[in-house]
Amino acid sequence: MSDTPLVSIVMGSDSDLEIMNEAAKALEGFGIAYEIDITSAHRSPARTSEYSRALVSRGVKVVIAGAGGAAHLAGVIAAETTLPVIAVPIPSTALLGLDSLLAMVQMPAGIPCATVAIGKPGATNAGILAAQIIGTHDAGVAKKLVAHKEKLAKGVEEKSKKLKESAKK
Amino acid sequence: MSDTPLVSIVMGSDSDLEIMNEAAKALEGFGIAYEIDITSAHRSPARTSEYSRALVSRGVKVVIAGAGGAAHLAGVIAAETTLPVIAVPIPSTALLGLDSLLAMVQMPAGIPCATVAIGKPGATNAGILAAQIIGTHDAGVAKKLVAHKEKLAKGVEEKSKKLKESAKK
Amino acid sequence: MSDTPLVSIVMGSDSDLEIMNEAAKALEGFGIAYEIDITSAHRSPARTSEYSRALVSRGVKVVIAGAGGAAHLAGVIAAETTLPVIAVPIPSTALLGLDSLLAMVQMPAGIPCATVAIGKPGATNAGILAAQIIGTHDAGVAKKLVAHKEKLAKGVEEKSKKLKESAKK
Amino acid sequence: MSDTPLVSIVMGSDSDLEIMNEAAKALEGFGIAYEIDITSAHRSPARTSEYSRALVSRGVKVVIAGAGGAAHLAGVIAAETTLPVIAVPIPSTALLGLDSLLAMVQMPAGIPCATVAIGKPGATNAGILAAQIIGTHDAGVAKKLVAHKEKLAKGVEEKSKKLKESAKK
Amino acid sequence: MSDTPLVSIVMGSDSDLEIMNEAAKALEGFGIAYEIDITSAHRSPARTSEYSRALVSRGVKVVIAGAGGAAHLAGVIAAETTLPVIAVPIPSTALLGLDSLLAMVQMPAGIPCATVAIGKPGATNAGILAAQIIGTHDAGVAKKLVAHKEKLAKGVEEKSKKLKESAKK
Amino acid sequence: MSDTPLVSIVMGSDSDLEIMNEAAKALEGFGIAYEIDITSAHRSPARTSEYSRALVSRGVKVVIAGAGGAAHLAGVIAAETTLPVIAVPIPSTALLGLDSLLAMVQMPAGIPCATVAIGKPGATNAGILAAQIIGTHDAGVAKKLVAHKEKLAKGVEEKSKKLKESAKK
Amino acid sequence: MSDTPLVSIVMGSDSDLEIMNEAAKALEGFGIAYEIDITSAHRSPARTSEYSRALVSRGVKVVIAGAGGAAHLAGVIAAETTLPVIAVPIPSTALLGLDSLLAMVQMPAGIPCATVAIGKPGATNAGILAAQIIGTHDAGVAKKLVAHKEKLAKGVEEKSKKLKESAKK
Amino acid sequence: MSDTPLVSIVMGSDSDLEIMNEAAKALEGFGIAYEIDITSAHRSPARTSEYSRALVSRGVKVVIAGAGGAAHLAGVIAAETTLPVIAVPIPSTALLGLDSLLAMVQMPAGIPCATVAIGKPGATNAGILAAQIIGTHDAGVAKKLVAHKEKLAKGVEEKSKKLKESAKK
Repeated sequence: MSDTPLVSIVMGSDSDLEIMNEAAKALEGFGIAYEIDITSAHRSPARTSEYSRALVSRGVKVVIAGAGGAAHLAGVIAAETTLPVIAVPIPSTALLGLDSLLAMVQMPAGIPCATVAIGKPGATNAGILAAQIIGTHDAGVAKKLVAHKEKLAKGVEEKSKKLKESAKK
Repeated sequence: MSDTPLVSIVMGSDSDLEIMNEAAKALEGFGIAYEIDITSAHRSPARTSEYSRALVSRGVKVVIAGAGGAAHLAGVIAAETTLPVIAVPIPSTALLGLDSLLAMVQMPAGIPCATVAIGKPGATNAGILAAQIIGTHDAGVAKKLVAHKEKLAKGVEEKSKKLKESAKK
Repeated sequence: MSDTPLVSIVMGSDSDLEIMNEAAKALEGFGIAYEIDITSAHRSPARTSEYSRALVSRGVKVVIAGAGGAAHLAGVIAAETTLPVIAVPIPSTALLGLDSLLAMVQMPAGIPCATVAIGKPGATNAGILAAQIIGTHDAGVAKKLVAHKEKLAKGVEEKSKKLKESAKK
Repeated sequence: MSDTPLVSIVMGSDSDLEIMNEAAKALEGFGIAYEIDITSAHRSPARTSEYSRALVSRGVKVVIAGAGGAAHLAGVIAAETTLPVIAVPIPSTALLGLDSLLAMVQMPAGIPCATVAIGKPGATNAGILAAQIIGTHDAGVAKKLVAHKEKLAKGVEEKSKKLKESAKK
Repeated sequence: MSDTPLVSIVMGSDSDLEIMNEAAKALEGFGIAYEIDITSAHRSPARTSEYSRALVSRGVKVVIAGAGGAAHLAGVIAAETTLPVIAVPIPSTALLGLDSLLAMVQMPAGIPCATVAIGKPGATNAGILAAQIIGTHDAGVAKKLVAHKEKLAKGVEEKSKKLKESAKK
Repeated sequence: MSDTPLVSIVMGSDSDLEIMNEAAKALEGFGIAYEIDITSAHRSPARTSEYSRALVSRGVKVVIAGAGGAAHLAGVIAAETTLPVIAVPIPSTALLGLDSLLAMVQMPAGIPCATVAIGKPGATNAGILAAQIIGTHDAGVAKKLVAHKEKLAKGVEEKSKKLKESAKK
Repeated sequence: MSDTPLVSIVMGSDSDLEIMNEAAKALEGFGIAYEIDITSAHRSPARTSEYSRALVSRGVKVVIAGAGGAAHLAGVIAAETTLPVIAVPIPSTALLGLDSLLAMVQMPAGIPCATVAIGKPGATNAGILAAQIIGTHDAGVAKKLVAHKEKLAKGVEEKSKKLKESAKK
Repeated sequence: MSDTPLVSIVMGSDSDLEIMNEAAKALEGFGIAYEIDITSAHRSPARTSEYSRALVSRGVKVVIAGAGGAAHLAGVIAAETTLPVIAVPIPSTALLGLDSLLAMVQMPAGIPCATVAIGKPGATNAGILAAQIIGTHDAGVAKKLVAHKEKLAKGVEEKSKKLKESAKK
């Protein structure tokens, strides 16, 4: 995308890419410009710190951070920026993502991380949540969110119809 | 507060009030107008539904919902509004809030809840996160968030000094 | 089935169908008319609300609701109907269904969900539990439940015999 | 109560009485006759077996069983009766009732236990669920269940009013 | 085996057979006569009760019971016999056997179940534990237990040697 | 007691004494001679090893070991003796005894620990299980175990009577 | 202490001080100079980063970091220093320290944290582990560690004696 | 390797070898001589005890111990040596390594185990942690640790570049 990114999607490792792409897809659905990058709280702390401190001045409005295990990335970014940080727990370890979830959601008073579900549903929802945040002051996005909700409801109706038709056969 | 509330704090029961007041205190610290109310996903579903659907037109920008156990309140509100919904898990049951956390954070793809920590630290952070969301398009709040971060850092320095002084004695 | 359905089986998504079909099979075994549908607490809240409020007048006696993750469907239906609602936790997320279980069983005082086991055994048991509820005032179903118990016991005896015979060889 | 009991409340130990009394209170609220007794799956298996087998012929319609730890009571009764059995996990051990919950809810296909929340909210809900089951064929109870739901909704409204009034001061 | 069985291996379902055969193999290694059978706490309660009450008079000394989920079999047998009952948690449900473990080990004061590890290692150890119990008054078995321990130690030494040799190459 | 101890009760620390005394009380109820001692897998490994290796020759038949946290005592003793070792998980750490339980019950194939419930009920049951093991070849103890079961059943009946009487008032 | 500190004890908040003082006491027992300070991964990230990067040049050999909840402090320090970092999980949240433990121990490949037990026993052990690390190249400390082990063993013997004496009475 | 080993890698079973080889690879990367062996806390206690007591005199500086389930190996070695012992939880049982983790990390005050992550990332980190410990007094290793950190940071940068390039296409 050529526009200035409003959302920054970051992840600790390229192995998280398949999951985090769901956030990107969700943002594309809302026509929101984003950037996507890899930076690690533990392997590249200086890079992560610089990245986080530059976000506001670069015009980014929301950060989405995905990480697994002792998932510190979201918290470390949240420590260095005043932007809302959405945390996506990646189920990359033996503990199915429960470790990632707790390491993200249990932030101390003062520095929140807006944590969503473990794995792909969480990544999709991170994109939608970013759109909701932007939509609080962007009428175009807000309108698309209404359409998104209608599409969800319509999808349920269609699945319901299909189920009833297959039951008749 | 006399201003139109930008943030709506709701909870399922008055027993959650002590915890949810921390969110209110945080918002007051940022000078953000809020309303606080009780509505239940299970005991007053129609009321909750109406409340949720009216939020956008009433000018609310962010919802903070606290609930415990099979904590459905945040998800049920998120189903009916396009606003960002912040979920505060209340540790009101035998399971210490782990049930509340999972019932809030594990939302299906399509309808996110921005979940924060269990209990009081989470409620405080819900208020700050709401401020961060508003701060993405309100320069005054954004400035206060910078001051908030400086205050946190200063607080650590002061505690460090105090510890070293007490060690000398 | 052509009869008025006594049991309504609902699920949040068509991906839950394979599991929830076990409930349907169990009901068929007892000759109890049922309907099966898809409706979502989060994607189609209005539809779910209408559906729930119409159940009593349509003659439905028991609801079986299956959902995964932050599994709110059963609770949301229970909030809108006075019928007994049986909850089937679907293991559709990274957390193996523990999240679904807690989000269903830990309902607040006032609005129960009759929760059964995670996954297929739970869905089968949801069908049987619905039959037991109907059987409290339907002598025909009550008789079939006695036969069901005898069949279970006979099944154990047969497996025991088979094991002993294979041990002799 | 002098009427033939429609609901049987049983528990493994008199230490469970304080919690299980909530089920009794709920049933009294609906005017449903019940009996309350102590019998143990492990300490008095013969007694529990006889008790369970006699339930149907004595006119009982629903069983509510509370137990803690390796909570077998509900399952053991369910094995011997065709009546619906509601299971209340008692948090009497070091593990806060998680053991009781899993030992009750994870029943194998064929013999369901309708499990409710851990502790007092669960006991209350067990009483309400029993009323819902009886209400499927008892118009008087069904009517009281509608009133119960209205009372719950009204309770929320009152608490909301009170909160707003105290906020004004 | 033609001898009177000293150990009774029972399980709730033939799907547990693959795991419970490990207990049989262990007993064969110690030359201890056993019987193996299927009986269910929930599907065939009368059969399980009779079976349990007959154990002592038939000369059985130790029971090994395997079950999964709300694993009541061991506890139900322990309720009806004075023999030591060894419990093997079967990982047959979504919860990996944690439910089975807690439903077996958390027995109330008065009726113990000697619980071993989840799955195959547990079944093997159930056989060895039965041998240890018999070995407390059977010098032949006690001697074989000493040999078993030596074999374990020798096995480690051999694996160590092999590892060092492969490291040299 | 002056008799040669048949059961050895050991624990890792004197802070476990209050819980482990329940095992002693249970053994006293069956008239079984026991010894009680403190030895640690971690603080006094040589002592624990010697102690374990001497058990058989000293005539001990069963070991009961209580420990908390990374509870290695039972496993370490089981590694050095062919006697049955009963493990009592002590809830001495932040994790309520779940750590102790898993560190005891999940022994590898080859070296079982007969694990009982966490805390006092487990300690009582350890004493009863030891009696059951001794009772497999001691007619006197076996008879007392029958009486123990009758007493348990009678206790339930008495509590039931008392509950019914208090209900009448 | 006047010596150059070899061990740096840091914690995220002064509320962790009571627990972390146990680490200090342990180090004092070995005569190892330490410093103790407060710095937060989230509230004072720049300070923590500078602190971490200066450790090597200031002569510190080992870091002990205590934190609770989404406990990032140890990992964030480990990201910025090549020194061994010992992590002490503080049980300061609703989840008893399980969150702190997982957020510390589940570090990604490349940046270890040497995690010890939750709470006070862990803090004590952090001090001892630091001594063991220093003892690998400091004969004086190594000797004290031998004495420490002897003292532990002697402590067990004394408690054993005391228990036996009290049993005689 | 021909040099005197500074690090001893031990594991309970050859099935742990694939995971523990990651520790060996990490040490090779730092040019640190190590030995690798199999010894079991439970199957070969005498061998493990001798092995542990000989470590110091043989010049070993750090122990890395991997084990699964009731993972006692690290604790048992730590009981017999004054060297730092690094514990690698192996996810070899039904419980995904949560049992191994708790059985290793929750050591009682007095005898620490430096626990790292479950499985391969933990084994790699055990090797790096051993290098960090040796690096506290070995300038060559300390220098390699600085290079290791730079390599980690560079790896992130390269992955970031690659991601951005693939995004352009």
